[in-house]
Amino acid sequence: MKNWTQGWLVYGPKKVSGNDKFVEKISVLGFDKESIILQNAINELDNGITGMLSVKPEIVFDEQLTKGLCITKNKEIAAEGYDIEEKEGLVTLSASDENGLLYGMFELLRRISMEKPLTGIKVSEKPSNPFRMYNHWDNMDGSIERGYSGKSFFFENEEVVVNERTKDYCRLIASVGINAVVINNVNVVGPATHLITERYMDKVKKMTDLFAGYGIKLFLSLNFAAAIELGGPNSADPLDSEVINWWEQKIAEVYAKIPNLGGFLVKADSEGRPGPFTYGRTQADGANMLADIIKPYGGIIIWRCFVYNCQQDWRDYKTDRARAAYDNFIQMDGDYHDNVILQIKNGPMDFQVREPISPLLGGLKKTNQMLEVQVAQEYTGHQIDVCYLIPMFKEILSFKTYCAEENDTIADVISGRTLGNKNTGFAAVVNTGNDKNWTGNDLAGANFYGFGRLAYNTNLTAEKIAEEWIRQALSNDVEVVEKVLKILMESRTTYEKYTTPLGIGWMVTPHVHYGPSVDGYEYSRWGTYHRADHLGMGVDRTDKGTGYAQQYYEPNASMYNNMETCPEELLLFFHHVPYTYTLKSGKTLIQHIYDTHFEGVEEVETMIASWATLKDKVDEEIFAVVTERFNRQLLNAREWRDQVNTYFYRKSGIADEKGRKIY
Amino acid sequence: MKNWTQGWLVYGPKKVSGNDKFVEKISVLGFDKESIILQNAINELDNGITGMLSVKPEIVFDEQLTKGLCITKNKEIAAEGYDIEEKEGLVTLSASDENGLLYGMFELLRRISMEKPLTGIKVSEKPSNPFRMYNHWDNMDGSIERGYSGKSFFFENEEVVVNERTKDYCRLIASVGINAVVINNVNVVGPATHLITERYMDKVKKMTDLFAGYGIKLFLSLNFAAAIELGGPNSADPLDSEVINWWEQKIAEVYAKIPNLGGFLVKADSEGRPGPFTYGRTQADGANMLADIIKPYGGIIIWRCFVYNCQQDWRDYKTDRARAAYDNFIQMDGDYHDNVILQIKNGPMDFQVREPISPLLGGLKKTNQMLEVQVAQEYTGHQIDVCYLIPMFKEILSFKTYCAEENDTIADVISGRTLGNKNTGFAAVVNTGNDKNWTGNDLAGANFYGFGRLAYNTNLTAEKIAEEWIRQALSNDVEVVEKVLKILMESRTTYEKYTTPLGIGWMVTPHVHYGPSVDGYEYSRWGTYHRADHLGMGVDRTDKGTGYAQQYYEPNASMYNNMETCPEELLLFFHHVPYTYTLKSGKTLIQHIYDTHFEGVEEVETMIASWATLKDKVDEEIFAVVTERFNRQLLNAREWRDQVNTYFYRKSGIADEKGRKIY
Repeated sequence: MKNWTQGWLVYGPKKVSGNDKFVEKISVLGFDKESIILQNAINELDNGITGMLSVKPEIVFDEQLTKGLCITKNKEIAAEGYDIEEKEGLVTLSASDENGLLYGMFELLRRISMEKPLTGIKVSEKPSNPFRMYNHWDNMDGSIERGYSGKSFFFENEEVVVNERTKDYCRLIASVGINAVVINNVNVVGPATHLITERYMDKVKKMTDLFAGYGIKLFLSLNFAAAIELGGPNSADPLDSEVINWWEQKIAEVYAKIPNLGGFLVKADSEGRPGPFTYGRTQADGANMLADIIKPYGGIIIWRCFVYNCQQDWRDYKTDRARAAYDNFIQMDGDYHDNVILQIKNGPMDFQVREPISPLLGGLKKTNQMLEVQVAQEYTGHQIDVCYLIPMFKEILSFKTYCAEENDTIADVISGRTLGNKNTGFAAVVNTGNDKNWTGNDLAGANFYGFGRLAYNTNLTAEKIAEEWIRQALSNDVEVVEKVLKILMESRTTYEKYTTPLGIGWMVTPHVHYGPSVDGYEYSRWGTYHRADHLGMGVDRTDKGTGYAQQYYEPNASMYNNMETCPEELLLFFHHVPYTYTLKSGKTLIQHIYDTHFEGVEEVETMIASWATLKDKVDEEIFAVVTERFNRQLLNAREWRDQVNTYFYRKSGIADEKGRKIY
Repeated sequence: MKNWTQGWLVYGPKKVSGNDKFVEKISVLGFDKESIILQNAINELDNGITGMLSVKPEIVFDEQLTKGLCITKNKEIAAEGYDIEEKEGLVTLSASDENGLLYGMFELLRRISMEKPLTGIKVSEKPSNPFRMYNHWDNMDGSIERGYSGKSFFFENEEVVVNERTKDYCRLIASVGINAVVINNVNVVGPATHLITERYMDKVKKMTDLFAGYGIKLFLSLNFAAAIELGGPNSADPLDSEVINWWEQKIAEVYAKIPNLGGFLVKADSEGRPGPFTYGRTQADGANMLADIIKPYGGIIIWRCFVYNCQQDWRDYKTDRARAAYDNFIQMDGDYHDNVILQIKNGPMDFQVREPISPLLGGLKKTNQMLEVQVAQEYTGHQIDVCYLIPMFKEILSFKTYCAEENDTIADVISGRTLGNKNTGFAAVVNTGNDKNWTGNDLAGANFYGFGRLAYNTNLTAEKIAEEWIRQALSNDVEVVEKVLKILMESRTTYEKYTTPLGIGWMVTPHVHYGPSVDGYEYSRWGTYHRADHLGMGVDRTDKGTGYAQQYYEPNASMYNNMETCPEELLLFFHHVPYTYTLKSGKTLIQHIYDTHFEGVEEVETMIASWATLKDKVDEEIFAVVTERFNRQLLNAREWRDQVNTYFYRKSGIADEKGRKIY
């Protein structure tokens, strides 16, 4: 008996009629029968159909059918893409490669699971992004940095774990189109540095092969100072020939053992991690050194841009952490070699519930870029509070950077459409752990599911993705679909309402990052301030302040720079604003703060009441877990409401117009 | 080679002339030659004199001398007291018991160490307090709760440690008159619960015997729920006969093995520790049950009164943690048996740099009371910042409670003078660890030394105690004495200036309790609030507020209740005061906050400059350690200054009259 669920791959009986006739006989044409991916796909199809349609399909090879399902190879179709079309009782799934076949097969299962008819199906899909990647921040002791769903299922007691759950993990993420995974924390310390040594390579190879069977490339996070720690030269200087020699040998060793390794993810010169800056070298020096060495093996170096001064003095109003990624990376645009990808967080700070888009994205015009978001709910409720993040990711993707005449959105930049490059993509810090339901709160499964779907097809709407997840993971019941869809779609706005207002961010319990502490980061070294005084609050990032707004292309730069044209949801990120300033709603800033905080809690109460009505319509265990989390969310929301309102009431002395309880 | 110092028992050559003639021959009359205390005293005298006066004394027994030093038994002298008198070349030290002899002997060594002549000496001393006690918060894993001087020297890897350092510890504390020590943390968890079992009793006995050789009773902190954890009845109900039987057996076992054990210290129903409240019983029920059982063995139960609700809601303005000790204990006054002592913290909160005196002290009129202070600098600078605490302890002792017509100060209450009782005393949470110099900052040695001296003689001034310590531990050089004396004597006021104003307390980094965080405890569950808004700050504890002021006798109650008569250093503890309120200095409250914070930092700078001039006059290692701590203190003081000033400037909007830099 597995002590974990199957997530959204729940193959129970489905009520729609007519789909069974397409799957009684299935033929595969043109693919290598020995392919592991093909075998995994067929197994999945077999299990899914048997479970959902009570049909045991007959599977044949290289036989042209007139009825049923034909899976055929078609070189015309884009890499990892697929077409599905039904004509006169024959469903044809075509793909040019095995990943496309696998994804098309999961599309069929998804349709069946959602009780949609295959009759009349006509689909043509290809991935929006070359790399669709999950980053795990798992440590080798089994802990997970910013993990809210139990322990790691990749590591335990400083060992690599490969078992049945690893395979189910692959099935889950392959089903939504993920094709790359980093298994270990970007902060590489202790035994994780040794993942590239003999001690662990057998296990890593085993996992890499398992992943490959689902079209997934395994990547490792790398310790930039590994040479020093693994007994090589006592340096990590990327221009030192001894260091280079050491890496050449090391990477040769690794690829001799694990030829299908995807490459490495590197967090250098960030939050205490070693990097090229230590040796007076550029980030490009560091990244290119590794990239050149790994290139003959087809490897990729993904280089994180989360480089900032984390020893800032709160008294210093000039230094601005928001500027850091752009300032540190823009000048080397064009210097990075072709198999380097810069991985850039969506915002200039750190995964807050509301941030502007990083101006480095699209700011770079000659560099491969990957967008990094956080599905793990570090600042968005720790998978206790519901916060469906796909609407936020949609906003990010659709942001118009003005970096080019056309194809200038973030989605364009990371897909390669803007620059015509191929080593680009979309990565997320994932929210999984060894909790039975993978994600702590079952509803957080919608993010785990949704990121993959969105990364594969950035045109999908957040609603559509949510509906897909609900129907597969919870129920096709109309009431369940409607109510949970409403909960999910409103959840991020609700979370934003009861936490930090208008893009200012933080105000969170230090280190833990759950629950309010309005001044928790105000006098700290982290560069994360709200600058609230008795008259107003917010950070002046205009040309009269830190100048951050000037990092954008026009007209964005001017739009943000001007308090009147700045999008209000980001007002306090860009401007120091009096509490008495009138917003477009006609409310003053302070009244907006009060109102949103009262509304946020009321909305949580409404969600809870709505969820409670579904007791008999969703799985008992899921209902109980989600209910328990909702109760904790309500306490959290109240604490935020009361602390934020009290803080600003005490500071401003301005009473709530509606006379509600403030302490 | 010992890797620890001898503290103030530094027996190097001394310059005063003439003392050598008194110690060439020493005779002991009337005491049992086999007594370990006597032997320890003679050894100490021998070493001290040899080291300081370059005389190897001839020690004889029961021989009446006409010149030299006679140590004689005199039944007339109070317990643990001593007389010393010089007449015509003969110094006579008289005592009625061995502790008195030991303390008199240390008085002689102290004089010699301070280069004072013995000629003309005439001293008559007796202890102010029956119990003079150090509480160690040492854990069996070697950590020390609120320890800032390294690890425990009593415990290591869950074992009891008895070695040469234990003996030196006894010498140090006996030299200042300490006669009781609790070796383990009041929070008794894990293996510490087992200290009263076979596993540890041999070692505890060994330590108890070693202590006894210096007139020190060893006490253990007890887990009130020990019966449950040690396999007895599944209850800790003090009225349950099974529980009582279990304790009878347990205590019989313990005393069979360790007949000279002093007794037990109990923290019950406090901060998550189990206690009688769990079973609907009173604190007296719990204490008396243990006391009755231990009485036949001459044991004492010390019962802590630190009982309060640590799950308070910050929104609740009515509940007041300051009231808790009084409210929880006053009604049972008279119910406690004679061998129970209530141990009461000096203030109603928790060892802040400034608090009013706990109204429970003297509030109780039929109960044995022990005053508890904290020599460990939890809230007073972690032995990084210099904070000589004896002036604060003097204030506490001299506080007039009005609990009786006469003998109504705290010193009277805890000495037994007020009530005519004998089981009373003065306890301190000590500041030692296995750091080479015992106390982290060498200057913190003045507190370790000073508490014992003050507990023995509450009439000593803080200046005299400081001078004694400086002369013994650092140097008899006049410049060293004057400059360090000034540093020590001003240090607490300085610390208060740059930290929390006018008795409000807290504003400290949560959990750690070092460094500022003005709102750190403002929205927490700990009952520790400053209630600052844009108009003013402070907690209304008058009859219109929480009523805490009414827990005092008149005229104290009225004095505190009235903003005009309330001592200003406690103004914000008792009153919510506008920032514009004019203090007796003519300054507004807000200006007072700004001024004191700037002054505090300037005073630290002055101290550092003064200390720097002593480079060639004090031990090199001490100079380096203290200098390094001073540098950290300066950073800390600046951080406090800037955060507190900025916080209140931002909140009040009132500018500093002097236009100094506020952020």
